Amino acid sequence: MEVSPQLEDAMDIRDLAEEFAELCAAGRGEEAAARYWADDIRTYEAVPGEYAETHGKDQALEKARWWAENHEVHEIEVEGPFVNGNQFLLYWEIEVTPKGGEREDIEEMVLYTVEEGRIVEERYFY
Amino acid sequence: MEVSPQLEDAMDIRDLAEEFAELCAAGRGEEAAARYWADDIRTYEAVPGEYAETHGKDQALEKARWWAENHEVHEIEVEGPFVNGNQFLLYWEIEVTPKGGEREDIEEMVLYTVEEGRIVEERYFY
Repeated sequence: MEVSPQLEDAMDIRDLAEEFAELCAAGRGEEAAARYWADDIRTYEAVPGEYAETHGKDQALEKARWWAENHEVHEIEVEGPFVNGNQFLLYWEIEVTPKGGEREDIEEMVLYTVEEGRIVEERYFY
Repeated sequence: MEVSPQLEDAMDIRDLAEEFAELCAAGRGEEAAARYWADDIRTYEAVPGEYAETHGKDQALEKARWWAENHEVHEIEVEGPFVNGNQFLLYWEIEVTPKGGEREDIEEMVLYTVEEGRIVEERYFY
């Protein structure tokens, strides 16, 4: 069977997305980031705030570390990936206690855009 | 409290997205489309095929009707909306029997882009 270039790309993305999702679900987010984030990755939160937008791997890591320091994570579930072209989605369900706050469930979708085997954009939906 | 323009837009989108999701979950997809699709809506499936891309409301309706005629729908569940800026996501779980096929569960995410109160793009992920 001949595979169309469009479908072949989607298969590569799915492999990348599955590996990325597995690392994230195992709580190995920093490793996932080191392996798959592009140097010029951009991230976009859904609400205003200090880290509403980040540009570049250093700032994205700074945001990730700030988040990790301010939340105690009890459980992470990651559903997906769901793929279209060079983008994929993961559905995150995280049980956390924010510093000084109460235990809560966070549900969010993250849309990842991939170029040349690296994640160049993360967009958060909730 | 003053609401930032960014947040105000997101609130409008969330209202629209919730109404749209409710109609879809109730099996009233044609009504949702009539109310919220822009005339020049574009849709993008994740795999090649006759309706891999559609341009304009007429072609999108044609695709929706083709789908409805070729699938018996047993149950629709719609989770969401999940919002960021002028985009929102719905998580669809549909139990169907394709014409001549076997009953199956379909899980897909759809990314909707909104401009001036109308959905201008639907992008399917699975």
